[in-house]
Amino acid sequence: MQSNRLNLGIDPWLLTENDFDPSRVKSSESLFALGNGVMGGRANFEERYSGPSLQGNYIGGVYYPDKTRVGWWKNGYPEYFAKVLNAAFWIGVDVRVDGEELDLAQCEVKRFYREMDMRRSVLTRRMTVVLKNGAEVEVEAVRFLSLARRELGVIRYSVTPVNRDAEITFSPYIDADVRNSDANYDEKFWEPVRTEEDATQSRTRKSGFEVAWAQAVALDGAQFACETVPEKPRRTATVRCGKGTTATLYKYTGICSSLNHRPEELSAAAQAVAADGLQAGFDALVKEQEEAWAARWHRCDVVIDGDDAAQQGIRFCIFMLLQTYTGVDTRLNIGPKGFTGEKYGGVTYWDTEAYCLPFYLSTAGQEVARELLVYRYNQLDKAIENAAKLGFKEGAALYPMVTINGEECHNEWEITFEEIHRNGAIAYAIFNYIRYTGDRAYLAEGGLEVLLSIARFWAQRITWSEARQQYVMLGVTGPNEYENNVNNNWYTSYIACWCMRYAAEAAAWVRENRPEAYACICAKRHFDESAETARWMEIVDKMYLGEDRERGIFLQQDGYLDKEQVLVSELDPAERPINQKWSWDRILRSCFIKQADVLQGIYFFQENFDLETIRRNFRFYEARTVHESSLSPCVHAILAAKIGEAAKAYELYLRTARLDLDDYNREVEEGCHVTSMAGSWLAVVEGFGGMRMADGVLNFTPHLPEAWRSLAFRVDYRGRILTVTVTHEGVEVRNEGEPVEIAIGGERRRLPDDRR
Amino acid sequence: MQSNRLNLGIDPWLLTENDFDPSRVKSSESLFALGNGVMGGRANFEERYSGPSLQGNYIGGVYYPDKTRVGWWKNGYPEYFAKVLNAAFWIGVDVRVDGEELDLAQCEVKRFYREMDMRRSVLTRRMTVVLKNGAEVEVEAVRFLSLARRELGVIRYSVTPVNRDAEITFSPYIDADVRNSDANYDEKFWEPVRTEEDATQSRTRKSGFEVAWAQAVALDGAQFACETVPEKPRRTATVRCGKGTTATLYKYTGICSSLNHRPEELSAAAQAVAADGLQAGFDALVKEQEEAWAARWHRCDVVIDGDDAAQQGIRFCIFMLLQTYTGVDTRLNIGPKGFTGEKYGGVTYWDTEAYCLPFYLSTAGQEVARELLVYRYNQLDKAIENAAKLGFKEGAALYPMVTINGEECHNEWEITFEEIHRNGAIAYAIFNYIRYTGDRAYLAEGGLEVLLSIARFWAQRITWSEARQQYVMLGVTGPNEYENNVNNNWYTSYIACWCMRYAAEAAAWVRENRPEAYACICAKRHFDESAETARWMEIVDKMYLGEDRERGIFLQQDGYLDKEQVLVSELDPAERPINQKWSWDRILRSCFIKQADVLQGIYFFQENFDLETIRRNFRFYEARTVHESSLSPCVHAILAAKIGEAAKAYELYLRTARLDLDDYNREVEEGCHVTSMAGSWLAVVEGFGGMRMADGVLNFTPHLPEAWRSLAFRVDYRGRILTVTVTHEGVEVRNEGEPVEIAIGGERRRLPDDRR
Repeated sequence: MQSNRLNLGIDPWLLTENDFDPSRVKSSESLFALGNGVMGGRANFEERYSGPSLQGNYIGGVYYPDKTRVGWWKNGYPEYFAKVLNAAFWIGVDVRVDGEELDLAQCEVKRFYREMDMRRSVLTRRMTVVLKNGAEVEVEAVRFLSLARRELGVIRYSVTPVNRDAEITFSPYIDADVRNSDANYDEKFWEPVRTEEDATQSRTRKSGFEVAWAQAVALDGAQFACETVPEKPRRTATVRCGKGTTATLYKYTGICSSLNHRPEELSAAAQAVAADGLQAGFDALVKEQEEAWAARWHRCDVVIDGDDAAQQGIRFCIFMLLQTYTGVDTRLNIGPKGFTGEKYGGVTYWDTEAYCLPFYLSTAGQEVARELLVYRYNQLDKAIENAAKLGFKEGAALYPMVTINGEECHNEWEITFEEIHRNGAIAYAIFNYIRYTGDRAYLAEGGLEVLLSIARFWAQRITWSEARQQYVMLGVTGPNEYENNVNNNWYTSYIACWCMRYAAEAAAWVRENRPEAYACICAKRHFDESAETARWMEIVDKMYLGEDRERGIFLQQDGYLDKEQVLVSELDPAERPINQKWSWDRILRSCFIKQADVLQGIYFFQENFDLETIRRNFRFYEARTVHESSLSPCVHAILAAKIGEAAKAYELYLRTARLDLDDYNREVEEGCHVTSMAGSWLAVVEGFGGMRMADGVLNFTPHLPEAWRSLAFRVDYRGRILTVTVTHEGVEVRNEGEPVEIAIGGERRRLPDDRR
Repeated sequence: MQSNRLNLGIDPWLLTENDFDPSRVKSSESLFALGNGVMGGRANFEERYSGPSLQGNYIGGVYYPDKTRVGWWKNGYPEYFAKVLNAAFWIGVDVRVDGEELDLAQCEVKRFYREMDMRRSVLTRRMTVVLKNGAEVEVEAVRFLSLARRELGVIRYSVTPVNRDAEITFSPYIDADVRNSDANYDEKFWEPVRTEEDATQSRTRKSGFEVAWAQAVALDGAQFACETVPEKPRRTATVRCGKGTTATLYKYTGICSSLNHRPEELSAAAQAVAADGLQAGFDALVKEQEEAWAARWHRCDVVIDGDDAAQQGIRFCIFMLLQTYTGVDTRLNIGPKGFTGEKYGGVTYWDTEAYCLPFYLSTAGQEVARELLVYRYNQLDKAIENAAKLGFKEGAALYPMVTINGEECHNEWEITFEEIHRNGAIAYAIFNYIRYTGDRAYLAEGGLEVLLSIARFWAQRITWSEARQQYVMLGVTGPNEYENNVNNNWYTSYIACWCMRYAAEAAAWVRENRPEAYACICAKRHFDESAETARWMEIVDKMYLGEDRERGIFLQQDGYLDKEQVLVSELDPAERPINQKWSWDRILRSCFIKQADVLQGIYFFQENFDLETIRRNFRFYEARTVHESSLSPCVHAILAAKIGEAAKAYELYLRTARLDLDDYNREVEEGCHVTSMAGSWLAVVEGFGGMRMADGVLNFTPHLPEAWRSLAFRVDYRGRILTVTVTHEGVEVRNEGEPVEIAIGGERRRLPDDRR
């Protein structure tokens, strides 16, 4: 069975491709990307390829502050946009057969098979090609980034002449002379430091990161000649191969950065990693890889019975998330494209808190999720500086819209300065984490500082309206970016109030339970709890939150009902997506919504609304939502499942889980929508699985789609691995861990330890 | 007497500078700029100057479509931003004294005097300098762009050795190898076509304009050697000069463009212009220049008795406007910086209709003003295309925010797509022209087509609000650009209604009075008068126009009164200008107003409001206006005068009339604020002179500032030159022309022909 557009095979654990189509090379480079949480790269070919391709190898945390490009400068814009760098092409293996370069763009490809084994993150390519000189060869290339050894990349590259004896020449190399295709001013971001035999080291301009790459290669019975061109260490060996016999090159690449090593030791470190890889050998490394990945999957697999496409879709989402972030380093985060492309440059968006955190919280364990909170805690002072630049005072914090090191990178006033609801999501993540893990102590260890700084921001960002005798929130952009610079966006105002209330609660808890930490925080942050929280509560009490009583809905923003009320179902399909077909002002004037906005708030704070209210708002707003953000369908799917709109939930889920595999948006060439994959997981686990923390316990109220026989998923809940199996008959939960209380459909139940 | 900042002399007719300060060179280059309505340039030195300088020579209508630079692309943005080109440096005269280059940055300047004689547009520079080799010389350089011969530039350059005999070497040259300093991607905009003896021809890339420059030079008793380096034709001659004797070079440059010549004839044409100049001789050309300028000034001089600074200020404004535009070519228009700098690139903004048209209407005569209307008429089809790109249908026109050839150049969504009130100003200009001239026939000859196309735009741009049961205008930016993407901007909605009403009236008039033209227009524009005008009137009837009844003011936009109401007088001066001190979002959230918005509407449509209403709105809005646009104070000065706030009117006038001479905004280096100079003229003539068309006649209700003994101004009114003299005792009007009815203080009076 094959999916349509990209001609990918459908299989529960494998991503496969069965033919070679140059027009799909870039798409496949994104989809077959490899990553081990600290580095990754697109599925470029090892051997030379002269057809269209987007080279991409990325090292988490190594970035370049590219000079801002802007049409009309506005006060407050940042000077640079931090970009994850396209780093050295470490996978290079030039191959010649009887002297002719192997290049799929230049020879006949008789057979082509590519496979990503998602169970273990190993990329395999097998093909039979006929070169212009008549030589026919079978090629197998196997590649992975070691999860057990985070600085190691491994390649096995085999060539077998099929129709005659042949001389096979392998030239494994590293090429550090690379550029970013999205550089704003076509600058080169790297400068060479030194190149020696088998190793090269480069430094990023301006940001001064250094990285060394070293290769160790082996090829039975061959002697390598060595070249040391600057930035391009390279070896070459030729073997004579009888027809039907195989020449196999092994290449182990060490990739070490100054994030983890002293610059002067980098080259030696990379050489050591490569040499250790060579020493361990390919088979042992594969075994390590399998074990490391099996441990991962054990905590987070989702099994859908009766729908292979959905099964593959969700596994692909989980797989990509696991490849992107593993929580080993608080300097890292989850970029919208992960390690699959350059687009969106800077790494961290509110996607992390709103979508990704719950995934890691439930699948990678408390410590990993906590790293994501600590990332923002570490950037708190930068967020305070950022707010100060915009005129806020007294320790108010505005987290950046896009960042890699805590500094704002985004430069579009209606987003950078106005899409401030991101501050709410960052506070909400703390709440969400504590609710799930019970780790209230985090409030004393960083959480409260972040919360009070955010609350201070909101308290300054509101305006007292003499006219209304209420507080209003002027000039914001909500999650629905198809509205800019609106007043009283309901979601933003609601989450602002929630933040101020939660910060006040958190302060009280820390004061009562961690008096020493409390004293420290008060001193460090000049926090006057009683005065500040009194002010916050006064604002919360008098905050204007729009509502349309007649329709029984919350009002997305002032004036929303002045718009022509048209439903998406009434839109001519030829006009969609409107972000490609309509001018920006027309989109802004229309009632059409890009992604959940009021409904994002209702999703976050479900407990605060009765089902009827949720239903009324869902029906009103979803009908006006074009879902032109990859982050949109998942939230809607969850709410649809909750209010019993099963068909709608399923329809929306399908738009999210195979978004990239089926390339709905025709842009997978640029990279995969990694953060929205967390949304797909949410749709399955929170939507169909009905998982939700409520009243202090984890509750499951499943809504299994008709089309599925069963759904099983695993979550890590307070140190236990729970396996939840949902069938049309009911729910079963297996607990690997200490006994724990949960709820099913609202009914509490104590789970014994099922390991015994 | 000298003004402060720039150390300029104050004189009613002269702009003078008495010392040499390298830090002021760029400012003076702007202020002493020359122009003859079709070309112009900054007051760069003829001889080499190695200090900081901004070279600028511009040819009206010759532009380059520079690739758009934008941070985040929005649908509907144009591909390019048309820029007036920095053209060849035609004034070049390298001078050597005993072999040493004359360069003011490299020698001792003992005396320096620069003068622009505004009466005749002749720039003179006199200086005494001591070169490093000890030679002391007196230099006089006189330059002008002929108003009588629009393709001719004239230079007389004299050098007199003072302390010894010396060899003086002159190398007059043209340098066509020039760049724009504001190129978006540092591209060169010109490519050479050919260079021959004394002439060179270049072509603009992409836009394909061609221009040839040719020089004809004379130097008594000297033989010139000729060089023909590509793009740089050059002659060199050396003369021996006894101490105290003068060597004088004459240089006549012909500058011809493909706007007026066939490309293959350009070089010959330029050479002919130069040769004719040489033939006529310097003195005759100066005489022509004096006569041509005297004729200009005769129609438009303003005399302020008792305030030399104000006198010089207003003369400078008028002078710059006369240098910039003379109405000889409908392809030309008035750029914000005229010929004084590159900034703002593309030429035409709504400044032309809102500010400049009344000036030319009253000072240059009906035909010249009409050219400005025809300019927009000629671009109507482009405006319809522009609207179609944004999704408007059926011949609706949206004129561009910035243009040079009718295509939109601006790329900032909140302006490009939303500052649509510009359409209103373009319609208003037609009304204003007809009201002043009585030339209703223009409706049949272009006016109606423009009006109905604009009315169609408004009729599609409004939205029926079910919630209000009224029409609303969503997502606009008013003249006050410190608010973006607001709903129901009063000014925009008001002028939209006025446009629809006026278009309907115009249609009726043409139908009744020019039936043939009417039939043509209906056919050409698919105009169904009864259906369309019925729709327009229905919209006008049901349009929402915000008002605050309690305060008795029109509401700038929805939600304006939700803002914190702070007055400009309460702003800490250290926070001003807010556009430099505050982040953009803070400006947007504040109540502060950049320039007249509600008051712009009240100014345009004064007759529709009683004095009390004008006073209430003025007092409310002016108190919140920071006047951070050069176009702001003038409108306020006029209204202040009208409502009897004499001191306020005078204070506001002072901010506009000497804006550049006193460099209030510290940016005159980039060029002068040419379009706002028309505002200064309006402030004098409409504000203090109280000139206004009312009930079909020109009325004067003066408000003479205390500080002035008298104010006299001339206007061209329906073919008569009226000289209006205002004293504290009363008003006198002298009429050079046929008898005509006017009004003074609302009382009608018949003016005889005073020539007899």
